[in-house]
Amino acid sequence: MAAYAFGIDIGGTNIECGLVGEDAALICKSSVRTEPHRGNEHVMELIAAQIREILNQTGISADAVRGVGIGMPGLVDPDRGISILASNLNFRDYPVAGKIASLTGLPVFIENDVRLYIFGEAVHGAGQAYANVLGLTVGTGIAAALINNREIYRGGGFAGEIGHIPIDGIPYRCACGLHGCLETIVSATGLARQAKAAVAEGKQTLLSDFHPDPDMLTAKDISDAYDRHDPVAIAIMEHTGKLLGRTLSYLVPMLSPDAIIIGGGASKAGDRLVVPVKQELFAHLHPIYRDNLVVVRALRNEEAGVIGSALYAFRMLQPTG
Amino acid sequence: MAAYAFGIDIGGTNIECGLVGEDAALICKSSVRTEPHRGNEHVMELIAAQIREILNQTGISADAVRGVGIGMPGLVDPDRGISILASNLNFRDYPVAGKIASLTGLPVFIENDVRLYIFGEAVHGAGQAYANVLGLTVGTGIAAALINNREIYRGGGFAGEIGHIPIDGIPYRCACGLHGCLETIVSATGLARQAKAAVAEGKQTLLSDFHPDPDMLTAKDISDAYDRHDPVAIAIMEHTGKLLGRTLSYLVPMLSPDAIIIGGGASKAGDRLVVPVKQELFAHLHPIYRDNLVVVRALRNEEAGVIGSALYAFRMLQPTG
Repeated sequence: MAAYAFGIDIGGTNIECGLVGEDAALICKSSVRTEPHRGNEHVMELIAAQIREILNQTGISADAVRGVGIGMPGLVDPDRGISILASNLNFRDYPVAGKIASLTGLPVFIENDVRLYIFGEAVHGAGQAYANVLGLTVGTGIAAALINNREIYRGGGFAGEIGHIPIDGIPYRCACGLHGCLETIVSATGLARQAKAAVAEGKQTLLSDFHPDPDMLTAKDISDAYDRHDPVAIAIMEHTGKLLGRTLSYLVPMLSPDAIIIGGGASKAGDRLVVPVKQELFAHLHPIYRDNLVVVRALRNEEAGVIGSALYAFRMLQPTG
Repeated sequence: MAAYAFGIDIGGTNIECGLVGEDAALICKSSVRTEPHRGNEHVMELIAAQIREILNQTGISADAVRGVGIGMPGLVDPDRGISILASNLNFRDYPVAGKIASLTGLPVFIENDVRLYIFGEAVHGAGQAYANVLGLTVGTGIAAALINNREIYRGGGFAGEIGHIPIDGIPYRCACGLHGCLETIVSATGLARQAKAAVAEGKQTLLSDFHPDPDMLTAKDISDAYDRHDPVAIAIMEHTGKLLGRTLSYLVPMLSPDAIIIGGGASKAGDRLVVPVKQELFAHLHPIYRDNLVVVRALRNEEAGVIGSALYAFRMLQPTG
């Protein structure tokens, strides 16, 4: 009998729910507003309702579903199934896995959302040919996850928070209190920040004409201006890519990955961003790493979260761990 | 019956051999010159002879010895037991584990020497209270190893080569061809290099009087001058420590270690080096890491290599891997 797992990606805005086959095929996906202000229990009910709804819709028997994987933002204790802290969802020490298990009767596994997104890409996406994958999600912020032979690296619990590496020469203060954190530049927010600054400084750029209020500038606007050969947009993209490439040059000799995957919303900038990342990274790498490292974009960007979460559930259900 | 393992540390100068109990007690240790110019087979014979000699000397039965762990410099394939490349020993694609196994009749496990040194410190030394340990050996060069829940992190094979992270502001070309590699400053060699440069520049320093030829200056000389309040020696030690601290601030958010262990010959500089490392590291760390990270010196510096190698053999012999 075919086997399935649900993959859930709880974001600040939406809860994505997908039913996924063992072959990583996404059978069905739904999305509802998260509504965190209505309380933790409500969010749990929304997830259980999505699961029931998808089972009804697809006609797949609950008996064919092996488990549920849930990606949560913030700090998670996967062993106890607890969301330790997810500020924007108002979760604190909340037993997510236990709640969903009691609502659905299924085994439930939770992990940090970035790790599950990258897990999905590593085992069944851009990284599936590589044993050791360093993956990044570049979105509102930037974070990383390390997957080795299908094992998620956790460290002391806060592994992967590369957005808070302070980099010399970055002039911005971060919300975390540090000065010059990587994600103040290398993120969708950071790209928009640089565009706003350029307009405010009166630089000659197409970006000045995109919106009545420069605060409305987005990462996508920079890609659009880039494609129209705007020198300011090109400079912002190259500066951002180079800072990321330089930061990766600090990490690669320690981690020795086979592949670096760049995902998340801002990775839609594609080669505009990835080319300068590679240039700066490879210019600063010892020869032993240069020939054995690929830098690629995520393949299943919109779906990697739910697919990764479901594949993680399958992985955790394997008898050999 | 008490159980033992041999730990071997093959260095460019000496081969250290230790008989170690399951409780990590070092029962007996010997050291012979490596003599790599006499060929790979000869080096293997030297190891087998040391093992026989120690068994004779201690009167411990070969039946009580469970296995042999061997730390090799350079690139190792632990699964196949092969030294892929150890330039200064003239080893290339040589089946070290198989040779020693056939000479001794014991199960043999090999790994990179830095990883086994740090493995020893992580499971039975300065890191034994911590699950996730990032360890450094600062000697002729600098390298790192990551031990998570007693598992050695390998990545794509070249993990831990942090000596070849290029750092902005380091003016020296590295033997590897890159510019500004960390180990051109943060190593015993790098400390001596800075001392020679200071003397050559005619700086007012006690270091000028230590040797007739400034090329004879060593890392230890800098510690000695430091203790006599020499401002140049103090500045060299602080600069070196701060560069290492800053580099660690790039790695900690990615790895989230519970403990950082600083070992190797240059760690004999002690707090002269470790205090500026900590200052610079903690000044650049996100608050979530600051309270949950200790930076400590290796406990079993002279013996960590052989003890770590032996404990690794015990670890590999455990049925659950």
